[in-house]
Amino acid sequence: MKIFQKEIALKPHKRGFHLITDLILEAIPELSQINVGQLQVFIKHTSASLTINENADSTVRLDFESHFNKMVPENAPYYKHTYEGPDDMPAHIKASLLSSSVEIPITKGQLNLGIWQGVYLCEHRDYGGSRAIVITAFGV
Amino acid sequence: MKIFQKEIALKPHKRGFHLITDLILEAIPELSQINVGQLQVFIKHTSASLTINENADSTVRLDFESHFNKMVPENAPYYKHTYEGPDDMPAHIKASLLSSSVEIPITKGQLNLGIWQGVYLCEHRDYGGSRAIVITAFGV
Amino acid sequence: MKIFQKEIALKPHKRGFHLITDLILEAIPELSQINVGQLQVFIKHTSASLTINENADSTVRLDFESHFNKMVPENAPYYKHTYEGPDDMPAHIKASLLSSSVEIPITKGQLNLGIWQGVYLCEHRDYGGSRAIVITAFGV
Repeated sequence: MKIFQKEIALKPHKRGFHLITDLILEAIPELSQINVGQLQVFIKHTSASLTINENADSTVRLDFESHFNKMVPENAPYYKHTYEGPDDMPAHIKASLLSSSVEIPITKGQLNLGIWQGVYLCEHRDYGGSRAIVITAFGV
Repeated sequence: MKIFQKEIALKPHKRGFHLITDLILEAIPELSQINVGQLQVFIKHTSASLTINENADSTVRLDFESHFNKMVPENAPYYKHTYEGPDDMPAHIKASLLSSSVEIPITKGQLNLGIWQGVYLCEHRDYGGSRAIVITAFGV
Repeated sequence: MKIFQKEIALKPHKRGFHLITDLILEAIPELSQINVGQLQVFIKHTSASLTINENADSTVRLDFESHFNKMVPENAPYYKHTYEGPDDMPAHIKASLLSSSVEIPITKGQLNLGIWQGVYLCEHRDYGGSRAIVITAFGV
């Protein structure tokens, strides 16, 4: 088995949903050495998350932000964890509704994504700062 | 390490939640050769998804459809990505609330699922058509 | 490749969100033998789930319970799967909104989590009883 792992820091992104597929591919050129396998991207935070979705039309990412803000509102009367600001507790919930990791098959040295699929960094805080991600690729 | 990978096309399913555990098992008979490992099922689309849930009572799957339609409604006034029809943007959001993949442990040549667990294809479009999935099993 | 797998039974937890990171680490001391790899925790149930979130302030976990109860209410008029009690169908939906598994990178014999990340057992039933989880760690 081959296994490669990289930890990188993403520059700060504004609150919202951002395509990071190219950043991942740049970080792990060893992917080309894997014929069959799997790649994981893991985010080491609890107020930002990862998901896979549409990679072409930026309005999809705007609508994600609008909908998640509605489904997980700020200042809900039942929140007790409020001392880090109104964007904090919703950020934690959104992060678990999405995921701390994505797992993608590797086929012939490439991510075997559908043509419309890309990896999103989901930044749920107003000022989340830099985010650390761990990329692990393994296979034969 | 042993690793096996298959890409298959699922026939079109109507909008809703469908059990596909048996289709997965049929597609990868090499599973029986793995004593300890993991299986991934990955869907190459952004308006259909995968999850694991109850495999016995079909009303659970109906209730999933009802609830997701309520939680992620069509025609929300804040949607900007509307040109592919009212079922499109909700489909993208539902796909990320669920997942593009499921990962299941393999034990003694079989999926180590609970007795009530099955894999769902979650078809979020009215006419989603055929869906491509990649099945990867690895272990020793 | 090294691969280790353990199946354990968690004692009954009350409805809500509970940190189980230490229980996982205790169950798989072989983790220390893996320099680079990945750990999966999988729950063999459809009315309890797993997620990764904030590991310090217990009010985060209380707010998770409050918000999920609001987002996926009991006794929704459209539920058809009602014969196992009002907490059952919401439990299935919550389980799929979160996940049946978490996957975490392993680096130098340890889980490569962020300092604020922990693994939650999400018990969605009023009386869920003991829960079986399968822990699989692999790598080199």
